[in-house]
Amino acid sequence: MSSAPSTSLQDIISHAKEYGFVFPSSEIYDGLQAVYDYGQNGVELKNSLKSVWWKAMTQLHDNIVGIDASIFMHPLTWKASGHVDGFNDPMIDNKDSKKRYRADQLLEGKAEEYANAGQQEKASALLAEMGRLLGAEDLAGVRELIIAEGIVCPISKTSNWTDVRQFNLMFSTQVGSVAEDASLIYLRPETAQGIFVNFLNVQKSGRMKVPFGIAQIGKAFRNEIVARQFTFRMREFEQMEMQFFVRPGTEMDWYASWKEQRLKFHKAIGLPAESLQYHDHEKLAHYANAAVDIEYKFPFGFREIEGIHSRTDFDLKNHQELSKKKQQYFDPEINQNYIPYVVETSVGADRLFLAVFCNAFTKESDGEKERVYLKLHPALAPVKAAVLPLVKKDGLAEKAQEIVKSLKSSFRTVYDDNAAIGKRYTRQDLIGTPYCIAVDYQTMEDDTVTIRHRDTTEQERVPVSLLKEKIGYEVSLERILESI
Amino acid sequence: MSSAPSTSLQDIISHAKEYGFVFPSSEIYDGLQAVYDYGQNGVELKNSLKSVWWKAMTQLHDNIVGIDASIFMHPLTWKASGHVDGFNDPMIDNKDSKKRYRADQLLEGKAEEYANAGQQEKASALLAEMGRLLGAEDLAGVRELIIAEGIVCPISKTSNWTDVRQFNLMFSTQVGSVAEDASLIYLRPETAQGIFVNFLNVQKSGRMKVPFGIAQIGKAFRNEIVARQFTFRMREFEQMEMQFFVRPGTEMDWYASWKEQRLKFHKAIGLPAESLQYHDHEKLAHYANAAVDIEYKFPFGFREIEGIHSRTDFDLKNHQELSKKKQQYFDPEINQNYIPYVVETSVGADRLFLAVFCNAFTKESDGEKERVYLKLHPALAPVKAAVLPLVKKDGLAEKAQEIVKSLKSSFRTVYDDNAAIGKRYTRQDLIGTPYCIAVDYQTMEDDTVTIRHRDTTEQERVPVSLLKEKIGYEVSLERILESI
Repeated sequence: MSSAPSTSLQDIISHAKEYGFVFPSSEIYDGLQAVYDYGQNGVELKNSLKSVWWKAMTQLHDNIVGIDASIFMHPLTWKASGHVDGFNDPMIDNKDSKKRYRADQLLEGKAEEYANAGQQEKASALLAEMGRLLGAEDLAGVRELIIAEGIVCPISKTSNWTDVRQFNLMFSTQVGSVAEDASLIYLRPETAQGIFVNFLNVQKSGRMKVPFGIAQIGKAFRNEIVARQFTFRMREFEQMEMQFFVRPGTEMDWYASWKEQRLKFHKAIGLPAESLQYHDHEKLAHYANAAVDIEYKFPFGFREIEGIHSRTDFDLKNHQELSKKKQQYFDPEINQNYIPYVVETSVGADRLFLAVFCNAFTKESDGEKERVYLKLHPALAPVKAAVLPLVKKDGLAEKAQEIVKSLKSSFRTVYDDNAAIGKRYTRQDLIGTPYCIAVDYQTMEDDTVTIRHRDTTEQERVPVSLLKEKIGYEVSLERILESI
Repeated sequence: MSSAPSTSLQDIISHAKEYGFVFPSSEIYDGLQAVYDYGQNGVELKNSLKSVWWKAMTQLHDNIVGIDASIFMHPLTWKASGHVDGFNDPMIDNKDSKKRYRADQLLEGKAEEYANAGQQEKASALLAEMGRLLGAEDLAGVRELIIAEGIVCPISKTSNWTDVRQFNLMFSTQVGSVAEDASLIYLRPETAQGIFVNFLNVQKSGRMKVPFGIAQIGKAFRNEIVARQFTFRMREFEQMEMQFFVRPGTEMDWYASWKEQRLKFHKAIGLPAESLQYHDHEKLAHYANAAVDIEYKFPFGFREIEGIHSRTDFDLKNHQELSKKKQQYFDPEINQNYIPYVVETSVGADRLFLAVFCNAFTKESDGEKERVYLKLHPALAPVKAAVLPLVKKDGLAEKAQEIVKSLKSSFRTVYDDNAAIGKRYTRQDLIGTPYCIAVDYQTMEDDTVTIRHRDTTEQERVPVSLLKEKIGYEVSLERILESI
């Protein structure tokens, strides 16, 4: 069979919903925009991805440990990090439609129109002008530019625009009940700060020596205006971040090393080299002195799945200033105190899930019939093995159940006796189960079964007594860890 | 050595902080009340607990699958569940001190005073009266009772009280940016509803047949007025819930079965039978027709770590009513449509962590010296093995590193060559590492090492080639799963 033509995002979304990977959140109430739930197969895949990242960080590296900081943090944290003052999008409302837009995206849309019409210079000039105006304290110039370019609201078709205002992307809530004690706190917009405020707690209690890293997996929240592309940009999402603390002056070496190591990880979990690329940042964030994205080729183009950033001492220095607590490390090798520099690796867990899911989604056709299956790494598949009795009678069902029982403490194994065996194979293909174990009449005689391999559909005859060992290693995360 | 006298909560809190298990959140900003962060050892222990619960549910049971629903849900969810209208605490403020209290707790405190003074009848009468008054629409009677009992504010010492008002425990935030589209949403106060709204999605896409269960681990949030006892009652906490959908009329059998199975789980992870007890609810929540807690004997007394509730069809029925979407299951065995009944098992992950941590904390004394160690199940210990070269020279350090390298893909193994070997053993005892592997001069000759066992401190000589297999099984969650 040869591969069928390209897969659309719509194929992915449909398959994800139909086979229990991703559901729209609160669907019975018509959903909640840009929020999704992981179904029974999605959660297993996502958990495996989180687990292999965690082990790759904290088990394979002697000098990296994990933490799990809370989502609620002291509000001064976000003052120190710059999020209270600077985590904004420039918004503009159309007075007729009452719809709100990101001012920069309206202008970028216009620039794209110019570019599509071959007016490349005009497009570049517009983007440059926009960049200049967005940097100003007063955003009146941005509004004027939108009007001068004749940009209208797609709904009302008018250019009856309000002023451009900054809109903070953090969600806030009130904690505490005593009116005068209640304080405004934020849902963390990134997990990184939970690591920074615990830097000394971990360093001291864990007797860590620079260079060392702290890894964390957890939810973060951003009130995105334009949330789209399925689970790629959500208002509630999960990050897998590692902050690596280094001696100042050595950060560019570590940056280069992590850039390389992280690409290797993505290849180890099964993303092909040709679907991955680096994208160096030209414009750096205020806290960074180097930054690169690892991008995956989604159906909607190459997009970031991980960022590697050399964050300097920006965060620790600001926390030291605001908290009045020294954030220093005494380096016995050079006999000096310093605030470490930080190299960050930050994966979007939901994006990685989406990348792995898109990559696994395979449609093959021999011209007559089409075969769809998920070519997931066996260690990442939601179900590792399905045991299928050829028929229910003559003790085959009981024998199959017995095999399930002998395997399920080791890895996730299911039983299925419903419908013809071909249909049952297909069912497992659609959720990416790497091994189907068929119990037939020969099994009852010589205690062997056939194992059908998902990708090749080839079958081999194997003694029941060897199943646990044979499949066990293939589906273990250990196998991925050894290849990193 | 014999066990030293009882452990206080303060011992636990200190040990948890000093050895990287639990830190106060945002500590450099003087903390955030009732919020904690898990440190480098705490996160490993907590992750293992989550993982073994997850596998015990979804791997050992053919008819239970997991999901991971988002924290943000459609606001109607909380209308259906009763949280918008009924998830309240009765609060009263003292006008002089400006402090707020839970009215019921003030009265309970008074009743306790009576009881302590031997006036048992007076105490009971007061509690009964309070119960009656709290049930009323108008809470004026509760205030009158507080004043009549002469209860004063502990700060101002006055009885200058405001009215009693209901205070909702849900945190809320605004989602969306367009003023007229922005809506008030809540941070989920329980994970259960994420399962209920996905009931049909999972049932259909997973072809599940009643009885079946859906398991979930995730954060929930409650704006607790009186949050205390370390991680026992936090404003941000994690639940491990499983909702088991059954045919109406069979729920009491399943309730009895889960009550038993869940106790068995807690014993399998190492909590001793004598520290666990059932506590049947006398007063049932509005949605339940039977409820029991599994309690663990904390330093502050027996307290709930898990609740098992027969929730009837309360939740699904309300969701059906509010969403106008049928929440029914067609049962082919009896050829009928019905809304399933639900038996819920709900563990507080942070409470289970605290129970396991308290239980593991061991102080032994032979009269002269004291030994402190964490007697954790090997599969739950943050570090599984530590490799310790007797001295750094003569190739012992390199040999030890080589052993670490050979083991770390399989389980978390650390290297330590800092200080005398006795001190290094102690260091591992304090974080509960079950196996210390010492590399000595004999190792260089015959490729054997000593394994020191944490609980007995006994040592045995083992070939390096057998380490992976010997320790690997002992520290695997599979070992716990097999004993459930």
